[in-house]
Amino acid sequence: MAMNTPAEALELIKRGTEEILLEHDLADRLRETRALRVKAGFDPTAPDLHIGHTVLINKLRQFQELGHEVLFLIGDFTGMIGDPTGKNVTRKPLSREDVVENARTYQEQIFKILDPDKTRILFNSTWLSALQPAELIQLAAKYTVARMLERDDFSKRYASGQPIAIHEFLYPLLQGYDSVAMRADVELGGTDQKFNLLVGRELQKQYGQTPQVVLTVPILEGLDGVQKMSKSLGNYIGIRDEPGEMFGKLMSISDELMWRYLELLSFRPSSEIAHWRQEVEDGLNPRDIKIRLALEIVARFHSPTQAEAAHQAFIEQFRQGKLPEDMPELQVLAEGTLALPNLLKEAGLTASTSESLRMIKQGAVRIDGERVTDAALTLPQGSQHIYQVGKRRFARVKIG
Amino acid sequence: MAMNTPAEALELIKRGTEEILLEHDLADRLRETRALRVKAGFDPTAPDLHIGHTVLINKLRQFQELGHEVLFLIGDFTGMIGDPTGKNVTRKPLSREDVVENARTYQEQIFKILDPDKTRILFNSTWLSALQPAELIQLAAKYTVARMLERDDFSKRYASGQPIAIHEFLYPLLQGYDSVAMRADVELGGTDQKFNLLVGRELQKQYGQTPQVVLTVPILEGLDGVQKMSKSLGNYIGIRDEPGEMFGKLMSISDELMWRYLELLSFRPSSEIAHWRQEVEDGLNPRDIKIRLALEIVARFHSPTQAEAAHQAFIEQFRQGKLPEDMPELQVLAEGTLALPNLLKEAGLTASTSESLRMIKQGAVRIDGERVTDAALTLPQGSQHIYQVGKRRFARVKIG
Repeated sequence: MAMNTPAEALELIKRGTEEILLEHDLADRLRETRALRVKAGFDPTAPDLHIGHTVLINKLRQFQELGHEVLFLIGDFTGMIGDPTGKNVTRKPLSREDVVENARTYQEQIFKILDPDKTRILFNSTWLSALQPAELIQLAAKYTVARMLERDDFSKRYASGQPIAIHEFLYPLLQGYDSVAMRADVELGGTDQKFNLLVGRELQKQYGQTPQVVLTVPILEGLDGVQKMSKSLGNYIGIRDEPGEMFGKLMSISDELMWRYLELLSFRPSSEIAHWRQEVEDGLNPRDIKIRLALEIVARFHSPTQAEAAHQAFIEQFRQGKLPEDMPELQVLAEGTLALPNLLKEAGLTASTSESLRMIKQGAVRIDGERVTDAALTLPQGSQHIYQVGKRRFARVKIG
Repeated sequence: MAMNTPAEALELIKRGTEEILLEHDLADRLRETRALRVKAGFDPTAPDLHIGHTVLINKLRQFQELGHEVLFLIGDFTGMIGDPTGKNVTRKPLSREDVVENARTYQEQIFKILDPDKTRILFNSTWLSALQPAELIQLAAKYTVARMLERDDFSKRYASGQPIAIHEFLYPLLQGYDSVAMRADVELGGTDQKFNLLVGRELQKQYGQTPQVVLTVPILEGLDGVQKMSKSLGNYIGIRDEPGEMFGKLMSISDELMWRYLELLSFRPSSEIAHWRQEVEDGLNPRDIKIRLALEIVARFHSPTQAEAAHQAFIEQFRQGKLPEDMPELQVLAEGTLALPNLLKEAGLTASTSESLRMIKQGAVRIDGERVTDAALTLPQGSQHIYQVGKRRFARVKIG
């Protein structure tokens, strides 16, 4: 077990969490001398994790460091059903092979953070596929329609007349039943999962178990600092991004967002980060703090050596390009996506799209320091990058 | 097949029904040259059928006479689950043996009306217990929360804040799925079942079947002519009632209710009953029509000989008792039940409860012609009977 006192352990866990229900329950369990069973559920679809997901995974790692066991649950049962309304034709049912392959890909990514020896990968189809129809009905009897309609998205859809299919009421119950089957002590999830996590707590009570502690973590903002990090919004850092790309993206965030990322992503002690804030107040360029953040994150997903190399490349590239201290920050309006040649013109980095095309062809255009040769590249709304044309023209451009 | 033309068959079926959805669908099916599959669902609990239930069973018999097949469905699946909320402790789960025994008791009673050769007794546990969890979820996906909340009792409970457990939303779907599994052509039910029958229609469409015709029959009023016939209200005629009791109860109903019972319970042609109405208008005592009704019904559940014997006993008893032509009709107010001695006093048939007790002891008290010796007898609210004390005192008394 960990060397921390229960009180210290609680303080560590609390950092960067949104809510703990109930905190004194967690305090009680941390005083027990056994490894707690810490549950977190994940989609069964092919994972391409970004650092937004790692806020939660980092918290799981913290539990491991305190001596607890992580139950990494892949919710394959519903994934193998697909979309039963048939409305979403792209949501094809997953095969057993898909699920196994996706689990393998998960492991490859999460074990950059989690300790494999303290992690168990579970599949909820193990117990859910074995439920008798009568058991499913008994499960459905444990919750009321009115309470289910209190869930934020359900109440909005119901009020606005958008259809809610009845099976959608069963999914939170199945997710809650997972906690029963797993005898979870603690369940972690994003703030948007709070309702479902509480259903698990409620069901465990009804099945005669001590109800799990529910711990929610904030949803990380993307590079734009406004919308949640998401692949579809293009404002993300993939945990499989190359070191240089990852470093560049982290250097592109605003100073305010940097502090947020430090709180939610850094493993540095809170006291050290407080000291850095003081340094900036005393005149240190926030860019230097950003470099520390970027070094830590790149080292985590690659290696310290690769992180340092990315750092040097970043410096070199900006030195070569005479990167101005005060780079213009621009916002370019677009719906959906914007083609790179148009973006460069809109941002004033070229005089015309034909100049843009010529510069791309000559290899004179870089995004976050990486040379771009694909003139057909489009950039999604919400994305923010440093664009460079030739050696002198720079701008940090957000598409919004 | 029957000798009727499809148009004649339709007219026969329409008699005494509340609603047919859709009538032209039924007309189409009656033109087919095959036996239709006519579904009706019944509780799996021990049946003690009263003549209110036979409105529906008579309609099933009519289908049989027209050459069709009755699928008598015992809904044992939910019965074997019991009350999953655990609130209703009296609703113990039924065992397989209970269900088989109850089915036997059903047969004994329904085969007084139905033709065993054209009746199949089915149990929905056959297919429902075999559902995979994924299939149940796919079933639940076929209906929306909003549409389910349109069901009258659900909408009232939801509006008044009374809890609806989520499994209650699954029951109409399971009942509808029965129609799919049975490939029902027609489903019959009381008017209170209309919503559920329509769910079956809807689900059959979604499972690629031609949707069943839904046929509802009215809920029969009890002897009081106001509330629905029900054992708990005490205003019923059990189909296992003794001939004399059955005859007496039928003779106790109001003239207005007599016409209603003739419409819903008699197998006499409509034209004949129209003629009887004419007879009464021309001066016939309605009591004589009531005798025809009582003879028909008692003969159905016993035999013509027993019916005639009950008739003679009835006449004899009233002759002995000098039953006045114009018997007083009274209503006695009571909450719940009323003890017989008090009732007799309230109705003015005795001067005091002690006189009541004495008369009962002497064997001088009759209810519907049957001597009563139990002074502790209580009568339920809603019941209506002819009470007789000694040879001269009579009254038709309703407890309301």
